[in-house]
Amino acid sequence: MRVRLAGICNTDLEIVRGYMGFQGVLGHEFVGVVEECTDAGLVGQRVVGEINCYCGECPTCRAGAPTHCPHRTTLGIGGRDGAFADYLTLPVANLHIVPEAISDEAAVFVEPLAAALEILEQVQIKPTDRVVVLGDGKLGLLVAQVLGLTGCDLVVGGRHEEKLAILQRRGVDARLAEELPMEKADVAVDCTGHPSGFAAARGLVKPRGTLVLKSTFHGGVEVNLSMLVVDEITLVGSRCGPFAPALRLLERGLVDVESLISATYPLGGGVAAFEEAQKKGALKVLLDIT
Amino acid sequence: MRVRLAGICNTDLEIVRGYMGFQGVLGHEFVGVVEECTDAGLVGQRVVGEINCYCGECPTCRAGAPTHCPHRTTLGIGGRDGAFADYLTLPVANLHIVPEAISDEAAVFVEPLAAALEILEQVQIKPTDRVVVLGDGKLGLLVAQVLGLTGCDLVVGGRHEEKLAILQRRGVDARLAEELPMEKADVAVDCTGHPSGFAAARGLVKPRGTLVLKSTFHGGVEVNLSMLVVDEITLVGSRCGPFAPALRLLERGLVDVESLISATYPLGGGVAAFEEAQKKGALKVLLDIT
Repeated sequence: MRVRLAGICNTDLEIVRGYMGFQGVLGHEFVGVVEECTDAGLVGQRVVGEINCYCGECPTCRAGAPTHCPHRTTLGIGGRDGAFADYLTLPVANLHIVPEAISDEAAVFVEPLAAALEILEQVQIKPTDRVVVLGDGKLGLLVAQVLGLTGCDLVVGGRHEEKLAILQRRGVDARLAEELPMEKADVAVDCTGHPSGFAAARGLVKPRGTLVLKSTFHGGVEVNLSMLVVDEITLVGSRCGPFAPALRLLERGLVDVESLISATYPLGGGVAAFEEAQKKGALKVLLDIT
Repeated sequence: MRVRLAGICNTDLEIVRGYMGFQGVLGHEFVGVVEECTDAGLVGQRVVGEINCYCGECPTCRAGAPTHCPHRTTLGIGGRDGAFADYLTLPVANLHIVPEAISDEAAVFVEPLAAALEILEQVQIKPTDRVVVLGDGKLGLLVAQVLGLTGCDLVVGGRHEEKLAILQRRGVDARLAEELPMEKADVAVDCTGHPSGFAAARGLVKPRGTLVLKSTFHGGVEVNLSMLVVDEITLVGSRCGPFAPALRLLERGLVDVESLISATYPLGGGVAAFEEAQKKGALKVLLDIT
């Protein structure tokens, strides 16, 4: 594929700090156009691509969990060069054609939006549940929008008034973390991307509640496991998700992603783009590779 | 109630080391006879009792989770004197009459057997699941027996050949931990009672698998939360469980508890009983209070 547009994710920033020990071309959020393919029908199509490339034959793949294939490579994260380049390759099975109605600037968000939807693949969020999302970064804003579609009683805690305003404009109760209500939640989601997010989110969950972990970072965290037992908390680690529903939500305009774009750089300005992405207050920084 | 027989639990040993900061009469596993009661029909009945005493009026209680009532007292663990005494009191709602067919020596295991059953209240274990139980202590042997009734592909890892033999005699695949097969499990249960049990059980769970935590101990544990995210592991803290099904299993003879009794002491020998319970290789030590 010829890459058209790629996005810088927090995972990219963490990899640069040592997470996953990956060396190679970064980048796993992209939209591109197929130039060469064994499936002639895909040539010339605008596509997005699932990032985990699996064997399809091992017990994990046959059990329906190919994103966990022990033999997998992962675009721009492990064993496979990524999207911050003119061209990339992926297996045909990973590709999804992007409907006309979705712009390149929206399509580049399919991968993180799918990761937000993965929460609903794993956890039943009831319309009557009280849900807290911690973190107003790129992923937090997508998770909040997706969970808000369930009709649940949602509140989002963040650190940046201008980011929270993106949610407030869509009618989501989004506040500075120190102004979160005391009432505890049935489900809390840590999207802070920081080791400190675990304790903060843990403190917001009811007994028998569910704490969803979306943050990945370099290093470990001290956890009081006994209090997880006493309060019978369920912890759910959540990673990559399904692309088809992400494309449906974007096509129907149910999620606003274009407000999350902070800046766009040419590929040659990649180092400056990484610097921009690490600035406090930055949201999605894109690389224009057309 | 007049207490007849009480059991020493690992939680009692942990409380003596500082867990929960409880001061008072220990003991939460017991069988006794009601001597005075507002419900005249209960007087003279042999009973066991649920250990969490709840308010019944708060949102947690009304939501059906009275064992998590924030106003609760817990027999011999928090705010309420326990069963290592001639007499104890509990609310009528906590009591369960013990059927004739169940001996005192079996009835004293209802509370920990209920805690083992709590796993099946929280997690669906499929007959086709591969399940690993780590720990061959009192709780591990009960958990293994209960989970084995599901027909799942169960293996138990422990440290004491004579304890593992109790399970082997019942046809359970029970081995020294270092001899566990390499194949990973859909569900792993940490019943080791030790901080090191978490990492051991974590290493035995498949991606997308479930790790059930039954161990409580004083202090925290360093956890790689990012790898829980990458492998999409579900962690489930599990504490007190339902008494009625525990009584049904004992009445039907589906669980062997009497093989777990190491020794019985009179109440006056309580300190010696605690010393016995802490010995390597000890299982359930009882206090005879008749």
